[in-house]
Amino acid sequence: MNGRNLIGNGYAEANTAAFKAINPLTGETLEGDFFPARQKDVDEALKYAVNAFTAYKNIDKDRKAAFLRAIANEILALGDELIERTCAESGLPAGRIQGERGRTVGQLNLFADLVAEGSWVDAIIDSAAPDRQPMPKPDTRRMLVAMGPVVVFGASNFPLAFSVAGGDTASALASGCPVVVKAHSAHPGTSALVGAAIQKAAIATGMPEGVFSMLFDSGYEIGELLVKHPKTKAVTFTGSFKGGMALTKIANERAEPIPVFAEMGSINPVILLPEALEARAEKIAEQYAVSITGSAGQLCTQPGLLLGITSPELTLFKETLAEKVAEIASSTMLTPGICKNFQSLSGGMLEEKEVTLVAKSSKTAEGAQNQALATIAEVSAKAFLANPKLKEEVFGPWSLLVVAEDAAELEAVLEHVGGQLTLTVMAEDNELLTYKSLLEKAEDITGRILLNGVPTGVEVCASMQHGGPFPATNDSRFTSVGSTAIHRFVRPLTWQNWDKKLLPPALQDGNPLNIWRLVDNTMTK
Amino acid sequence: MNGRNLIGNGYAEANTAAFKAINPLTGETLEGDFFPARQKDVDEALKYAVNAFTAYKNIDKDRKAAFLRAIANEILALGDELIERTCAESGLPAGRIQGERGRTVGQLNLFADLVAEGSWVDAIIDSAAPDRQPMPKPDTRRMLVAMGPVVVFGASNFPLAFSVAGGDTASALASGCPVVVKAHSAHPGTSALVGAAIQKAAIATGMPEGVFSMLFDSGYEIGELLVKHPKTKAVTFTGSFKGGMALTKIANERAEPIPVFAEMGSINPVILLPEALEARAEKIAEQYAVSITGSAGQLCTQPGLLLGITSPELTLFKETLAEKVAEIASSTMLTPGICKNFQSLSGGMLEEKEVTLVAKSSKTAEGAQNQALATIAEVSAKAFLANPKLKEEVFGPWSLLVVAEDAAELEAVLEHVGGQLTLTVMAEDNELLTYKSLLEKAEDITGRILLNGVPTGVEVCASMQHGGPFPATNDSRFTSVGSTAIHRFVRPLTWQNWDKKLLPPALQDGNPLNIWRLVDNTMTK
Repeated sequence: MNGRNLIGNGYAEANTAAFKAINPLTGETLEGDFFPARQKDVDEALKYAVNAFTAYKNIDKDRKAAFLRAIANEILALGDELIERTCAESGLPAGRIQGERGRTVGQLNLFADLVAEGSWVDAIIDSAAPDRQPMPKPDTRRMLVAMGPVVVFGASNFPLAFSVAGGDTASALASGCPVVVKAHSAHPGTSALVGAAIQKAAIATGMPEGVFSMLFDSGYEIGELLVKHPKTKAVTFTGSFKGGMALTKIANERAEPIPVFAEMGSINPVILLPEALEARAEKIAEQYAVSITGSAGQLCTQPGLLLGITSPELTLFKETLAEKVAEIASSTMLTPGICKNFQSLSGGMLEEKEVTLVAKSSKTAEGAQNQALATIAEVSAKAFLANPKLKEEVFGPWSLLVVAEDAAELEAVLEHVGGQLTLTVMAEDNELLTYKSLLEKAEDITGRILLNGVPTGVEVCASMQHGGPFPATNDSRFTSVGSTAIHRFVRPLTWQNWDKKLLPPALQDGNPLNIWRLVDNTMTK
Repeated sequence: MNGRNLIGNGYAEANTAAFKAINPLTGETLEGDFFPARQKDVDEALKYAVNAFTAYKNIDKDRKAAFLRAIANEILALGDELIERTCAESGLPAGRIQGERGRTVGQLNLFADLVAEGSWVDAIIDSAAPDRQPMPKPDTRRMLVAMGPVVVFGASNFPLAFSVAGGDTASALASGCPVVVKAHSAHPGTSALVGAAIQKAAIATGMPEGVFSMLFDSGYEIGELLVKHPKTKAVTFTGSFKGGMALTKIANERAEPIPVFAEMGSINPVILLPEALEARAEKIAEQYAVSITGSAGQLCTQPGLLLGITSPELTLFKETLAEKVAEIASSTMLTPGICKNFQSLSGGMLEEKEVTLVAKSSKTAEGAQNQALATIAEVSAKAFLANPKLKEEVFGPWSLLVVAEDAAELEAVLEHVGGQLTLTVMAEDNELLTYKSLLEKAEDITGRILLNGVPTGVEVCASMQHGGPFPATNDSRFTSVGSTAIHRFVRPLTWQNWDKKLLPPALQDGNPLNIWRLVDNTMTK
């Protein structure tokens, strides 16, 4: 296990006080020494990234795609060593980590496909009209170009898919931007393995040195230095509201402010409409018992708010959910800090006025540490609306059932909760038609709206939006999941009356890349 | 002349202390009383905008296009009254204002065409695969949706094309967002006429009341209140660096931060390569004498920095430019404040170390006020690099010729000046091939790169990018000119497994709008 800071094609010297990884299930210290980076390493990583940028931003698209595929293959080549280490560092079960590895590899290949196909650059050409009156029209051609070095913060809750080689890294590399990862201190061994896989792929496919670097830190200092560094051009972060806002503030206060894409949490409301409850209250409860508690509830799209109109069927839903949740074994949380926070936040919620406990899972595994007991609580919509604290996210296996008197109260709750990553409606055929105004409000506050499903399990595809109005993310115009995530790191550049030999291939006459382009307002290939 | 605050389909009461418009050429006070808005008017305008949003965001695309075309027609119907008033308030000549009216009307019709065609919503559909293993794939459909009320700040230097019914308003209305304009205090009469034209068009085409409002203020207070208002969802601004950064700061400090698109000025470097100067130094000088001084140099893309390598031909260029500029009559600036600022900034530049005067126009019109004398100065690249003050924008007919020793110094100057709206290269055939590294740097700092032309005169089309790296704008991922300007006000929304009857038409099976869509990763219509 090489726990040194990875810079370009090499590693920095190991001369700081090492930190260790901890298995949250057992509390044991894991193998490997990880060396917090220093200012010097930050400078070095960005110097390499800037050098790499010049060559990498214009690299042949097939070579870039080959690099992304090579990363995917190197990750697979790590085999069980990676799965075991990730499980040990995260407390997540092997099945989940195997699935997550599949998603990670899938994301890399998705971006490789996107890059190889090539139309993602949104090429637009408007021909010259030298005889136009009163002024001649110039030849203008526009496409998306990479912005420069991107700093990616690894997230704790997806140690593969939202970490070192996760969607942020894959989309930034696909866009033509070099990446410097700040490895998450909760899974440094996983990060070291995956970082080495990326380095190996970069060398094997002949990428310019510095296209990828990765720095360790057990605290916040290196992350701050990376965001402050004048050569950093964009930042991605998935984590807490507090963390996201702190990074955004640093980025805004730079001499040259830079965009941060911060995904900061969501309570993902689920609206249980009356006819759906009449038809299948128990089935919905079973489905949601799984969605609320899977991965110890540590998912960005975990449904933390269940919302229904008072009725015997809502009571049946609640009772079934209580029964199912009570049967669920406790689960290991990612870190002692996250577990402590969950205990404190969920405990605090239960002490709020009019909040009552509905169910708590009780089967704690013998000797296991950092265990979370899944918890369901209940409150009236009136009390919920009167207490802003109740709309805060409790990261973990927690959900609050909010009971409204009528549809008007449902709407009031939606207006109250603010921006969300997802919003789900459980409804029978045609039932939606009678909730037009509710649906209008629902659409205004979310990035994804679902019918009769669970928000957990985000599909990675072109039509996915994983980013919602504030405070779910800090800029709802972008997504962090799916192929359009690439747009976070690119800006349009227009060439006017440019030398046709020197235009980028995507904009050349004859369409040598055979991509979709908007030419004189007509989409053509 | 109705100078009251326009709110929805009516006007607010006129009960504040009125301000007047001034003719900058004569210093005379113009007809009309304009009433600064109050907090109450801000609240009212946003209340109407929020109400309008619910209906307007999903309005039929042909009705929205008809509204935009009706605005264009109502502006034309104002006839000479508008031209005369705009000239009187801005000091700009009638030919320029007539051209600007053409551009304004053209922009509105361009967005009407965009909206009527419909593909701009970037519809993406991924079909369900219920049998996929290990998890079924859901049906997901995504398109761009409007974000909510947009606050548009009118700009002083384009009293029609970047003001009340300018590109910002046209693109925001096209996107489905209601607009509240903060009228620029330098042309309140022009604003009142155009605002009334928009209101008339909105009523005639049956738009929801509140889709457009417009507030006056002679100071900064109302602008701040508009940006701070919790219902405002985005802001556009074109003006000074100081103004843009102040608004961005306010927007970032809101409880719910919102995007600001601020275009904040640029010195638009022009690189004069040796062979081009050898071939046509005098011709280039003539071309640039016009570009530097047109509209009294008050254009965002005015070339404020000329950059060449020392040579006899560069001297010939300089001498010809000096001769041409000296012949140009003084011109009226937009406001006394802008004129005073120009005198002070250009005068200050001439006092900086090693900066020498090359030419100053001398023909001041008899009795004319607020006149700017076009000024060209010169400095060595070494001195320019040593003094950051010299890269600041001097808004007006000013240009600084920076003389480099060699190509390496040219590159150093480009790295030094930072983000720009435009960058122009004057070169002979094949000359660019020998400046590969210079061009790489040039592309990194600009939103538009031109060959053998002038940056002034921005074409309004799909392939235009008018927005560059900081400090030219605060987010280089967007443009304020051209049809893609619409993307500033929209966010993606994904419908998962949604009721097919209730999907927006753009996402329905069978493609009822006949738009381009990405369906299962294939572009199709």
